[in-house]
Amino acid sequence: MDELRNTLERIGSPDAGAMEACRRRLDSLTKPPGSLGMLEDIAIRVAGITGEIGPSLRNKVVLVMAGDHGVAARGVSAYPREVTGQMVLNFMRGGAAVNVLARQVGARVVVTDVGVAADLAADRRGTVPGVAGAALRVDKCGKGTRDMTQGPAMTREEAIACIEAGIRTCLAEIGRGADIVATGDMGIGNTTASAAMLSALGGFQPAEVTGRGTGVDDEGLRRKVAVIERALGANRPDPSDPLDVLSKVGGFEIGAIAGAILAAATQRVPVIVDGFISAVGAVLAESLRPGVSEFAIASHLSEEPGHAAALRMIGLEPALRMRMRLGEGTGAVLAMWLVEAACRIVREMSTFADAGVSRAGGWTR
Amino acid sequence: MDELRNTLERIGSPDAGAMEACRRRLDSLTKPPGSLGMLEDIAIRVAGITGEIGPSLRNKVVLVMAGDHGVAARGVSAYPREVTGQMVLNFMRGGAAVNVLARQVGARVVVTDVGVAADLAADRRGTVPGVAGAALRVDKCGKGTRDMTQGPAMTREEAIACIEAGIRTCLAEIGRGADIVATGDMGIGNTTASAAMLSALGGFQPAEVTGRGTGVDDEGLRRKVAVIERALGANRPDPSDPLDVLSKVGGFEIGAIAGAILAAATQRVPVIVDGFISAVGAVLAESLRPGVSEFAIASHLSEEPGHAAALRMIGLEPALRMRMRLGEGTGAVLAMWLVEAACRIVREMSTFADAGVSRAGGWTR
Repeated sequence: MDELRNTLERIGSPDAGAMEACRRRLDSLTKPPGSLGMLEDIAIRVAGITGEIGPSLRNKVVLVMAGDHGVAARGVSAYPREVTGQMVLNFMRGGAAVNVLARQVGARVVVTDVGVAADLAADRRGTVPGVAGAALRVDKCGKGTRDMTQGPAMTREEAIACIEAGIRTCLAEIGRGADIVATGDMGIGNTTASAAMLSALGGFQPAEVTGRGTGVDDEGLRRKVAVIERALGANRPDPSDPLDVLSKVGGFEIGAIAGAILAAATQRVPVIVDGFISAVGAVLAESLRPGVSEFAIASHLSEEPGHAAALRMIGLEPALRMRMRLGEGTGAVLAMWLVEAACRIVREMSTFADAGVSRAGGWTR
Repeated sequence: MDELRNTLERIGSPDAGAMEACRRRLDSLTKPPGSLGMLEDIAIRVAGITGEIGPSLRNKVVLVMAGDHGVAARGVSAYPREVTGQMVLNFMRGGAAVNVLARQVGARVVVTDVGVAADLAADRRGTVPGVAGAALRVDKCGKGTRDMTQGPAMTREEAIACIEAGIRTCLAEIGRGADIVATGDMGIGNTTASAAMLSALGGFQPAEVTGRGTGVDDEGLRRKVAVIERALGANRPDPSDPLDVLSKVGGFEIGAIAGAILAAATQRVPVIVDGFISAVGAVLAESLRPGVSEFAIASHLSEEPGHAAALRMIGLEPALRMRMRLGEGTGAVLAMWLVEAACRIVREMSTFADAGVSRAGGWTR
């Protein structure tokens, strides 16, 4: 609990002076003011986070948090629970979608096992370098959560532990030089836990924020909504107590994502939020420390109906609308390119004065 | 006219066999079917265009078409007309937004002067290598169009000439090895011409498809709509005759963009369509040769209200929603990254069989 409390206390505010200086610089460049839209917004946000105008963010890391879900036994996913561990091995071998997109942009992939049911690569803490793929970090808070329809998914102590595991992973990578991080997730059943958490934290009806996840059919979707309603009824999470919500209907990897976001904010490192699971992690982080979302950047809008609702709660706007629904950090890693583009615009474009280009208003002459 | 006619005749159809093989490959990879959304759609489209499954598209070029507009004298832009030529010089020096984003992705920038009012770098045909920036190609069809509120913007011969100038530029770059091209535009006043063309070709009211361009105020927007209504009334372009529409209310660079798209299709080279101006160029190309849009890929959705309408007419879906409204090819160059990502996914991801990952349906066991 001390690690979490210290983290929450160490989070500051965006640097308003750097944001204003970045805005002025953008308006001096050879383009109509604001015409690069979200690229300009991202550049200003990065200035607020880092205190630098157009920093060069070269050391990129995607933090994939992996955990299993007891509720997977309720038939809420199209995939069997073993897939979580199998996919972690796939990440380590470099064969998953997130590996491909991370290689393209030059990002390191670090998978943290915060609660996979299977034993992966000797169940111990520490980092095992992956073969041409992800590094594995084992920081288990349990071997999957318990079935939330039967009682709390985890204890309050486990909820704190998984957030702190996320904090540790993120701080370790920033300590190693990371200057931009992205979040990602792997966990069969985790759209169910995420929709349950979002219902509780945001006051939504489960049917409003529950989607098909990896691809359940109509019957599966009805079952999923019913499972979430049952879990919320059985546990009655307290919306004003984020740790209660996480422990009762959450997941280890969702807590870890929240921890990573909080930790990145303490270090003033931009953190790119992936899809629905990561956005719910960000909502959890914001509930724990209002204002922390100003250190985060949205990536894409997925097919999950709860994703837009979660992003709206924390005031983030996604740049990519590609109907992606894979998770793993795939959308966040794609968006790293856009954040880099935003910073390059600030650093490299000519000003009106330097280029000898006329400003607006001239036609009336 | 022979060059245009030959081009139209040389355009084939997407390779259905390659598309099907790409779809099968995507479904064998370690992800739920379709879960990468538009990345998968783009990969399949590229397979149809090129006949290859996940090709490596390394030789990237953005073709920026530049021209002036007589209608700029009517106060339809926030910027004076000289800016067109000034910005071409800025492209050549490498200081514009498109240069920055092209350098990031490793794309060559080629600006073609198809009708700038100013004399740029000796007014002759041929390519002048730019200093750390764009190459300039001069293939002028006029020194700006005529004011379309007073009569046709150009003659029918000039309309054909500017399309053919776009064909030549694109074929020259593909001849030099380009395996993916993007379109871009520069021309003060060209959102006015584009909205007028789209109104004529798509049967829209000018007010439905006219936006603020580089940033006119409410009064400027009302004036712009009135100017377009007046131009359409004065010229009565024939919606069934695309060359008539281009000549009466179009622009040289818009015709050249259509030409580039048609030429890319003849060579089975994917062409990424930038913002509103480029999308209207694509609508023009589709009107000249129905089906050619299947060789094109949309990039972003801009702030211009006509952009979405134009993309809908040709069945293209934009991946980026960043409120950009700069043109130059900036959105298309950003989207090159996404097309590359789509092809890498096909080439580099592991299959379920190779990775030992269970497929969907297992939870019922």
